[in-house]
Amino acid sequence: MQQTITLIGSGNVAWQLGQALQKAGHRVEAVYSRTLKNAEALANLLPGCIATDKPDFTQSKSSFFLIAVNDQALQSVADQLNLPANSIVAHTSGSMPMTVLERFPKHGVFYPLQTFTKTKQVDLSEVYFGIEASGKEVYKQLFQLAFTLSRKVQSMSSAQRKVIHIAAVFACNFTNHLFSISKQILEKEQLDFELLKPLVKETVEKAFLLGPDQAQTGPAIRGDEKIIQQHLQYLTDKPDLQNLYRLLSENIRKQL
Amino acid sequence: MQQTITLIGSGNVAWQLGQALQKAGHRVEAVYSRTLKNAEALANLLPGCIATDKPDFTQSKSSFFLIAVNDQALQSVADQLNLPANSIVAHTSGSMPMTVLERFPKHGVFYPLQTFTKTKQVDLSEVYFGIEASGKEVYKQLFQLAFTLSRKVQSMSSAQRKVIHIAAVFACNFTNHLFSISKQILEKEQLDFELLKPLVKETVEKAFLLGPDQAQTGPAIRGDEKIIQQHLQYLTDKPDLQNLYRLLSENIRKQL
Repeated sequence: MQQTITLIGSGNVAWQLGQALQKAGHRVEAVYSRTLKNAEALANLLPGCIATDKPDFTQSKSSFFLIAVNDQALQSVADQLNLPANSIVAHTSGSMPMTVLERFPKHGVFYPLQTFTKTKQVDLSEVYFGIEASGKEVYKQLFQLAFTLSRKVQSMSSAQRKVIHIAAVFACNFTNHLFSISKQILEKEQLDFELLKPLVKETVEKAFLLGPDQAQTGPAIRGDEKIIQQHLQYLTDKPDLQNLYRLLSENIRKQL
Repeated sequence: MQQTITLIGSGNVAWQLGQALQKAGHRVEAVYSRTLKNAEALANLLPGCIATDKPDFTQSKSSFFLIAVNDQALQSVADQLNLPANSIVAHTSGSMPMTVLERFPKHGVFYPLQTFTKTKQVDLSEVYFGIEASGKEVYKQLFQLAFTLSRKVQSMSSAQRKVIHIAAVFACNFTNHLFSISKQILEKEQLDFELLKPLVKETVEKAFLLGPDQAQTGPAIRGDEKIIQQHLQYLTDKPDLQNLYRLLSENIRKQL
């Protein structure tokens, strides 16, 4: 069913969500931003959509207000909104509790489990959506809206979202940092990080196919002290990397 | 040009290499293993290929002998081989120097930069091959052979292979360990690791597209102490994970 939706925010998440909702056949009625020009940039991509910096939506036709602003701004933006009586308001944050919206009778969370950049189109149909709501009817409506974007929609409590965020810090943010280290090691010897791309992709595929515990390889899990000592010696002038190498290797050994 | 090749070893690397060489139009003449039954298992997949546990190849027609055995066994296996006078022998190891083969007049390294499992077919055409050789003519021959499997063939010294191995420990082995941790955190709350798959895949794509330094996101790079403290508190009963979270976050901060 076609829905009429207003986006509150014009950052990376709003950018991707707005275009995906429109492609899915919904009407994005308006984009709100405290900076009008930012709202306009996104509204211009969505036929028939208006841009506004006024938080008074009492005359709006939208049934859904999706808030996609950063965590620091979420509470203050939500506090300024005036919404039509029967509308549903949901935020899209992984780390903020649903309660920041509790002054609205129908509220919830509409959380796409993905990392977004404006410049890189994301296929939302592959993305998990975590839904939480103030009541059964609101849950059903948010679930159905998400289901028009992806088949991977599921219930997710505020506590679960917090745990997912911690898990994602390890699996994504920290992983990316290991890529930075790896690149730095290679470039010191005029080698291109691109060399590791097939290896990294295969590592990811194996981890999800076999499970990461089964897929673990390398000197630490083999207990190959000779190679470990060679590597630590190579890193002598990088004590931070030595510490990290040592700690991660010890943790892998404990996994046995 | 079709080459005649003998594989020394019948493990994961030999398994994938044998099949790929045959698909590329070469003739795999023989598979050697100290355990005949292992050689037979692979030889049976390759039409016209024989299995042997005798290291005397003085009567062999092969121009290439590719040694794919584990690092610990490499020297002793190489020491037992008797090869035809004009043949080229190369090992496939990422961490062993070329010099383990120096008693053979024509020797080198034929290193596929990938992680291999028997049960999971790998597309070798996407894999980088690192070539090192005892002389120009041998280099050319090994390069051309690799080029029939992949367009990504390049010169790689023993020193460079060692550095690539260290970089791969960070980008692959340690990354996989972070996936294990992430899975463990999720499962404690009855959440499926699969939830993070689209996020992890996007993280990898972004790291190679934008470079990992540009792609870094998360509480550490934002300096979001509130979230970092919440996460550390959640990990109170897992001191190993707390230490790792702290060290990785500090290192990310230093990157700024």
